[in-house]
Amino acid sequence: MTYQAPTPSALSTMLDTVKFDASGLIAAIAQQHDTGEVLMIAWMTREALQETLETGRVCYFSRSRQKLWRKGETSGQIQHLHEARLDCDGDAVLLLVNQIGVACHTGRRSCFYRAFGPDGLVELTKPEIDPKALYGKQA
Amino acid sequence: MTYQAPTPSALSTMLDTVKFDASGLIAAIAQQHDTGEVLMIAWMTREALQETLETGRVCYFSRSRQKLWRKGETSGQIQHLHEARLDCDGDAVLLLVNQIGVACHTGRRSCFYRAFGPDGLVELTKPEIDPKALYGKQA
Repeated sequence: MTYQAPTPSALSTMLDTVKFDASGLIAAIAQQHDTGEVLMIAWMTREALQETLETGRVCYFSRSRQKLWRKGETSGQIQHLHEARLDCDGDAVLLLVNQIGVACHTGRRSCFYRAFGPDGLVELTKPEIDPKALYGKQA
Repeated sequence: MTYQAPTPSALSTMLDTVKFDASGLIAAIAQQHDTGEVLMIAWMTREALQETLETGRVCYFSRSRQKLWRKGETSGQIQHLHEARLDCDGDAVLLLVNQIGVACHTGRRSCFYRAFGPDGLVELTKPEIDPKALYGKQA
């Protein structure tokens, strides 16, 4: 499936439908389009969602850095958009993506790698990539 | 798979690991455990997460009503927990559930039923259940 960007007028109309919160944010869940694996959750401003829909490359908004976060721009672990979906009350989006490499900054495919077990948190997966290889000296 | 609740001491330790935000909330994503379908996103307080993990029945926190929201207590559309997972920064959980009936208050299986299409939002699914049948005169 090749992602097809909306026309400018359709994009504008759709963005007006989205209910950003008091901080101008919506929750965005990324799911691997073919396996169904939930990879991560992050946040988007209107500008981030617009760029994502226009380019087909996922762009979040970093709450800690207070700026657009083009997923993979440092690490190379980019997310190609297949489809974006809006939820019933318009304040969350589900992104069906093709994740290149790993989604998690720990080097794991998914950020949800710990299970609440009977005796404590259980680590379900090990890093596939050394975080130092993803971020260099920053890690 | 039968859900196994944590011991009281493990539960307490795990809850201390979760990073609730300034409003005492974390995001909670519900995914159908066997099909991988993402059903909904909602919010949890520590109390809601504790009840969910103790009982194996999903309980959210309603931000609009400002109280615990035992999913399905009015509609019968309950969520049985199979596994709960915590993300890397500890501020979101992924709930693998068995959804009885439908997750969405519109009567659809998933709340993410609208796609951002080239010419506007596209409705992907129709209601399976009349919302009036779920909520009676409240709908």
